Amino acid sequence: MNSFITDNFLLSNKTAETLFHSHAHQLPVVDYHNHLDAKHLAENKQFNSIAELWVTGDPYKHRAMRINGMPEQGITGNATDKEKYLNWVKTFPKTIGNPLFHWTCLELKHIFGIDELLSAQNAEEIWNHCNTLLQEDGFRAVDLLRKWNAETVCTSDDLLDDLTPHQTATNLKLGLTVLPSLRSDSMIAFETPGFTGWLTRLSGCSGLEIRTLDQFKEAIVSKLNNFEVAGCRLSDHSLDGGFTFDFSSSANPDQLFASILSGTQLSVTDLAILKTHLLVFLGKEYSKRKWIMQLHIGAQRFTSSRLRKIAGTAGGYATIGQSSNIEGLCHFLDALEQEEKLPRTIIYTLNPSDNEAFATITGSFTEDGLAGKVQFGPAWWYNDHYDGMRQQLIALSSYGLLGHFIGMTTDSRSILSFSRHEYFRRLLCNLIGQWVEEGLLPNDSTLLNQLVADISYNNSKNMILKK
Amino acid sequence: MNSFITDNFLLSNKTAETLFHSHAHQLPVVDYHNHLDAKHLAENKQFNSIAELWVTGDPYKHRAMRINGMPEQGITGNATDKEKYLNWVKTFPKTIGNPLFHWTCLELKHIFGIDELLSAQNAEEIWNHCNTLLQEDGFRAVDLLRKWNAETVCTSDDLLDDLTPHQTATNLKLGLTVLPSLRSDSMIAFETPGFTGWLTRLSGCSGLEIRTLDQFKEAIVSKLNNFEVAGCRLSDHSLDGGFTFDFSSSANPDQLFASILSGTQLSVTDLAILKTHLLVFLGKEYSKRKWIMQLHIGAQRFTSSRLRKIAGTAGGYATIGQSSNIEGLCHFLDALEQEEKLPRTIIYTLNPSDNEAFATITGSFTEDGLAGKVQFGPAWWYNDHYDGMRQQLIALSSYGLLGHFIGMTTDSRSILSFSRHEYFRRLLCNLIGQWVEEGLLPNDSTLLNQLVADISYNNSKNMILKK
Amino acid sequence: MNSFITDNFLLSNKTAETLFHSHAHQLPVVDYHNHLDAKHLAENKQFNSIAELWVTGDPYKHRAMRINGMPEQGITGNATDKEKYLNWVKTFPKTIGNPLFHWTCLELKHIFGIDELLSAQNAEEIWNHCNTLLQEDGFRAVDLLRKWNAETVCTSDDLLDDLTPHQTATNLKLGLTVLPSLRSDSMIAFETPGFTGWLTRLSGCSGLEIRTLDQFKEAIVSKLNNFEVAGCRLSDHSLDGGFTFDFSSSANPDQLFASILSGTQLSVTDLAILKTHLLVFLGKEYSKRKWIMQLHIGAQRFTSSRLRKIAGTAGGYATIGQSSNIEGLCHFLDALEQEEKLPRTIIYTLNPSDNEAFATITGSFTEDGLAGKVQFGPAWWYNDHYDGMRQQLIALSSYGLLGHFIGMTTDSRSILSFSRHEYFRRLLCNLIGQWVEEGLLPNDSTLLNQLVADISYNNSKNMILKK
Repeated sequence: MNSFITDNFLLSNKTAETLFHSHAHQLPVVDYHNHLDAKHLAENKQFNSIAELWVTGDPYKHRAMRINGMPEQGITGNATDKEKYLNWVKTFPKTIGNPLFHWTCLELKHIFGIDELLSAQNAEEIWNHCNTLLQEDGFRAVDLLRKWNAETVCTSDDLLDDLTPHQTATNLKLGLTVLPSLRSDSMIAFETPGFTGWLTRLSGCSGLEIRTLDQFKEAIVSKLNNFEVAGCRLSDHSLDGGFTFDFSSSANPDQLFASILSGTQLSVTDLAILKTHLLVFLGKEYSKRKWIMQLHIGAQRFTSSRLRKIAGTAGGYATIGQSSNIEGLCHFLDALEQEEKLPRTIIYTLNPSDNEAFATITGSFTEDGLAGKVQFGPAWWYNDHYDGMRQQLIALSSYGLLGHFIGMTTDSRSILSFSRHEYFRRLLCNLIGQWVEEGLLPNDSTLLNQLVADISYNNSKNMILKK
Repeated sequence: MNSFITDNFLLSNKTAETLFHSHAHQLPVVDYHNHLDAKHLAENKQFNSIAELWVTGDPYKHRAMRINGMPEQGITGNATDKEKYLNWVKTFPKTIGNPLFHWTCLELKHIFGIDELLSAQNAEEIWNHCNTLLQEDGFRAVDLLRKWNAETVCTSDDLLDDLTPHQTATNLKLGLTVLPSLRSDSMIAFETPGFTGWLTRLSGCSGLEIRTLDQFKEAIVSKLNNFEVAGCRLSDHSLDGGFTFDFSSSANPDQLFASILSGTQLSVTDLAILKTHLLVFLGKEYSKRKWIMQLHIGAQRFTSSRLRKIAGTAGGYATIGQSSNIEGLCHFLDALEQEEKLPRTIIYTLNPSDNEAFATITGSFTEDGLAGKVQFGPAWWYNDHYDGMRQQLIALSSYGLLGHFIGMTTDSRSILSFSRHEYFRRLLCNLIGQWVEEGLLPNDSTLLNQLVADISYNNSKNMILKK
Repeated sequence: MNSFITDNFLLSNKTAETLFHSHAHQLPVVDYHNHLDAKHLAENKQFNSIAELWVTGDPYKHRAMRINGMPEQGITGNATDKEKYLNWVKTFPKTIGNPLFHWTCLELKHIFGIDELLSAQNAEEIWNHCNTLLQEDGFRAVDLLRKWNAETVCTSDDLLDDLTPHQTATNLKLGLTVLPSLRSDSMIAFETPGFTGWLTRLSGCSGLEIRTLDQFKEAIVSKLNNFEVAGCRLSDHSLDGGFTFDFSSSANPDQLFASILSGTQLSVTDLAILKTHLLVFLGKEYSKRKWIMQLHIGAQRFTSSRLRKIAGTAGGYATIGQSSNIEGLCHFLDALEQEEKLPRTIIYTLNPSDNEAFATITGSFTEDGLAGKVQFGPAWWYNDHYDGMRQQLIALSSYGLLGHFIGMTTDSRSILSFSRHEYFRRLLCNLIGQWVEEGLLPNDSTLLNQLVADISYNNSKNMILKK
């Protein structure tokens, strides 16, 4: 059985084919939010095997392997990398209908030239074929990203992370610009056991004493300045399911922070008040620096305690949480806007029943002279599949202005996940082509080419460029 | 580039074409809920320019212009009408994929005969062309409604509004019946600064003293009777996101109303109790008069304080609120039904994730001999687009009886928005035609013609006619 | 007008036709959850009329008849069966677009050979035709199930129900295995008037005194053992809209149960604590026996008090409740898993805005060596229609592994509802065929045939077989 990944994969009509091949596919990729390891890029890492590159570190595949009943030992345990690869091979046919099926085929084909469906029959051959290629020139980390036409990538970095690998990677002059972006969660993770240790490290590396909330903010600012120097353009907050903005003044943030320092556990309400206070503070700081604020809303990360112990806090077993608190989100954005400090913002939801509300908020906060100020981000995480991406595009188009959309980003740890840009572009061109076929859009190539180019590249490129 | 608005716009198959051209399109329009200005109809207003008719008063366009980064000065500010029109022209190409794109093309074509896509190149020519026509006979307010085959329109009027313009407009004998309908929000807007002033005016124009809740109700009843005389058939409540029915008896409504009169601020809970009490009272009054009760649920109107100051309370920056409290809604309808005073009811939701629940409620409250007593209203406000309308029809069809649907209404302030009836009818006929093509419905012209005629006209006509 | 129920009903392409006719349609039916009356099966009941078989006991039809304005007297009242049938005939044309339309046509065609659309014109003829057949051999209860190729059915039985009819029915040796399954609601219905009476009966038939929570559990266990002996494989809890898992230890379950026994009304919070305690207890018991735990979440059963009085607690007037509390559900599953006592679980939601979250939870709780441990159940109740089934399949496919899906069950009281298995299989094959046509799946008959066979039969068969 040959792969069904033809040149016109996902393209069901001539308009779609032209839009993709002549326009979308010609453009470089700006991946403005991902979890790539900058050190891997700085050293242009060579991978030992297709398992290391593709299986052992990929929570999406781990999740599918678990649903398929594979033993944890052969997923994240002490099985060999090859055994884990073979467990993935066993699972692959069961992913039919799932995005993993498409991604697998796309990645094997475009990077390794494999046209067959992965199966028990060809598992050994593909293992050897890929591993051989991975030892060749042109198959190291940055090379692989360049095969997907990546031009700029923004990794996610903790406030305390070393930002030199990014510059080193850029300096390789392989055509890839690597920028840090700020993963902001640790700054408001007051309730986690690691917070005080993190605070001590912040104090150490900023050289600033932290005994008050103001001093904490001062230390944060000093590190934000470092990020600014390193070319940071975006921040990112994960506001999980049930997150509540609480603007009530029933408690004093300075005192709440003092309680944290003294080791006192805050009530749920007080924690929400303190977090909200910090989020407003940070939002203003982002605005000053013209950074883009990303809000990833609605994950339910606490599910199986068993898997949390085995696979860590991000091991692929999270689920979609409740629909979001729209009123609270609006209140937060308004609080910043009232002080003229609302940064460009990208809101993502993990619960697609929020799609319409999120798409509509793009018209609720705007700025003279700045098109697309508030963005409904691309289909996030579990929604990053054929139907989920289409639904996000349809919602944004119906409730907002599609032409200002900043388009796809992988949000992935995996270099091969850059296949999703191609996937997204095919799907985008196909949707627009279908609309033309159905008479919903005029067949005006000027308008359509512009639309596709803007969403594929121009809008994210312009967003990343310093304003 | 010629317009893509052909005779068969949105009609993808022969069944759809026949249903639309031979049936739906032949029927008059009953627009049972809108925000037209009755005074404009009474005087058969002539518009100065296409900007006045089409741009300066349209929050949908303002919203799109803001997302597009147009300066507020050129949207709602002191720019000239022509400058505002030109800002809309700049924004129009960016609305591709949004309903505004379709509406714009439909309206320019069917009213002004313009086949080209609006653009910088033809902006001046179209400006002149439309403005010339608007000075001609047949392009005044009522004439324009008649071009859309409008037969009956029900405006939205405050309890204290003058209802004579409606009769005056009807008396023009231009083929249009103009009826008032009751916008009920001011009666329960206890927490707003304007409430006491409004109450004073109610007392004045009803000639009744209002010192108690009973006297308040008496004054309301006297005005409801005026509406009845003027031909009112519907009321309308906006129950925004987070609205809670509270039937707890922990507080005495009489005392709560006395607190309001004495200028005391009610707690959130007490406010909900008092509002619920009034809603039940009003529901019974509507039932006595055989009015239809409309409930518009789920808007999040508080978003940007900045835009609220600039553009007022209904300036196009609202968003979709949380999904609705289904239990509370059922409790409300049940409370009325238990007293045999549940009026015909239309429930609308702004959050389409409520679609299935709302469609299902149509089977939860019913009446012997009265088909379609509780209606899931047409896709409302931001949902009033191609996909939103289809989703509403599919939900209603799947969970209720589509054949009893009272169909489209514009809910708009704009005369040109009557294009949406044609848009809805095309989309309805297309959906039914597609179902026939896919073998989901029998190709039984008797059944299908009846279905289309009932949804397009008969059901809303029958609802408006006095029972 | 001939029926549109052709051999290729719902099958829009060749792949779909082959998958259905050569694979899905050849397989027996395992209906693992329904509300059939085991006594009817034990006696292989003969029906007096098509009304008795099809109309008078079917809440779906009652609901449609009510929306259509039929008088209650002619639905559930003292009208004759024939009058009720004729009211259904009047309603039928109005169900166009609703699943009832399809089901009606399918059932009349495949059981009674009727090709025409039901109408006032042929109502009498069809009445006579069906009633004549119903008196013939091969049209009794079990025979009808066998016409749909039913092989195994699992009825829903209270803890106190007699389980001998199931064995009697199986012993008829007509090719049908009838198993009891446990309807668990009465065990935690502490707040209902009937609870103490039920408890007395439990004490009586178990021969155990029940004065404490431990004794209550002991009595439950003795009856669970009876179910086990009778071949029970599944339990079923209905957790209606607003149901909250409450694991707080602020109250002692033993004392709360003592309060119940003493006739004290529990607070909402205490009730939730006690119910949660029992659910955890029961979950562990199911796990010990390797039963499957079904959770039906999100019905809003309290709507019209009027209809509740007329039609009982399950009379077709319920609606879809709020979206589910995902966090609480995860907490519940985790509490069981932490004690290594999480049974196989099927979660169903009545609110389709939960689809994506429920589909995703299938990857949050897993077990080494057991594929598809947590299942997102098939489109439930009101969602059991063309679009709802497709949406469930698309969600499951996009967020989980479709190939492990245990497929359709009727959840119905009606023997004719087994048409829905055919309906589901047609729709499933069509969806897969469409994916192939669109290039979304490879045209690999080995993979596709396996997928269809597993979902249609193998997975549910394997689940029911003792592990």
